[in-house]
Amino acid sequence: MAHIDLGLDEKEFPGISGPMRYRPETAGPLNELAEVLLRRGPHPLSPGERELIAAYVSGLNECNFCCSSHSAFAAAQLDTGMTLVDQVRSNLDTAPVSEKLRALLRIAGAVQQDGRKVTTAMVDAARAEGAIDLEIHDTVLIAAAFCMFNRYVDGLATALPEDSSRYAEAAQRIIHEGYHH
Amino acid sequence: MAHIDLGLDEKEFPGISGPMRYRPETAGPLNELAEVLLRRGPHPLSPGERELIAAYVSGLNECNFCCSSHSAFAAAQLDTGMTLVDQVRSNLDTAPVSEKLRALLRIAGAVQQDGRKVTTAMVDAARAEGAIDLEIHDTVLIAAAFCMFNRYVDGLATALPEDSSRYAEAAQRIIHEGYHH
Repeated sequence: MAHIDLGLDEKEFPGISGPMRYRPETAGPLNELAEVLLRRGPHPLSPGERELIAAYVSGLNECNFCCSSHSAFAAAQLDTGMTLVDQVRSNLDTAPVSEKLRALLRIAGAVQQDGRKVTTAMVDAARAEGAIDLEIHDTVLIAAAFCMFNRYVDGLATALPEDSSRYAEAAQRIIHEGYHH
Repeated sequence: MAHIDLGLDEKEFPGISGPMRYRPETAGPLNELAEVLLRRGPHPLSPGERELIAAYVSGLNECNFCCSSHSAFAAAQLDTGMTLVDQVRSNLDTAPVSEKLRALLRIAGAVQQDGRKVTTAMVDAARAEGAIDLEIHDTVLIAAAFCMFNRYVDGLATALPEDSSRYAEAAQRIIHEGYHH
């Protein structure tokens, strides 16, 4: 049970969907931030790649709801599906992603620990693989934003869905309708 | 020097103001989130108390720019000024704040580490001092949001202002004009 009374059936509105409905004034900018960072284009990183960064950081933060959600959202938008998501999450060094994405994911992993862990060498490595400033900026902000979303979901002790097929259903909703409340 | 070319004079636009100008699409929801969480009323916590939560978390994350900024914003809106901000940051257990605010700051400190560190006992303690659900929700989200803002500012290696009087000037701007870009 969540730490506060969200005024709804927590099984029906698991994870972040509960507090999003509880407080629409903050849900608005939170959804808009997710929409711009993860979905809106044109963008040099595909929505699937950006969701992969979100899933990776949520996994490092051990946020079950966010990691399951964004892994499903990434898998649904990447040709390689959940196999690649699992490979990235289990061993970034050997996962079959582009060297550019690997370097960006390393930056995201540093941000997850502490912003000050991002080194010039990491940024130079991403740039050497073709990453541009916008990709570096958005990688840092996606990783930082999921350090927020993960703490929001877990800090309120929100519920997990009873049926994990809900994540794949949510993926279709995000792909077709986007982030909004 | 920041990790990316922000396209502006970093001394003129220190800290988060650089990336905010670099990427207005994300600055919009980030500013709106800060505005709702820290400034908009009516709210059971004053803007000064909410800024104090932001300053406290930014201090725990050792984010120099955000901690200096939000300490100044809190001090300018609390009768007790910077003395109280310093007391809270140096020893929360003995700082002369209300027991309700102390309990909420303890929740914020748990969120800063990991959302899962927020216990039912901490939430019950806040409630016993009169905290309502909205205050608990917003405390968790302010703390979570500053885990994002702090990582955004430090993950891009943004510059500090050359003159620390800039923080007090910024406080007047925030008080009178609010968070926007």
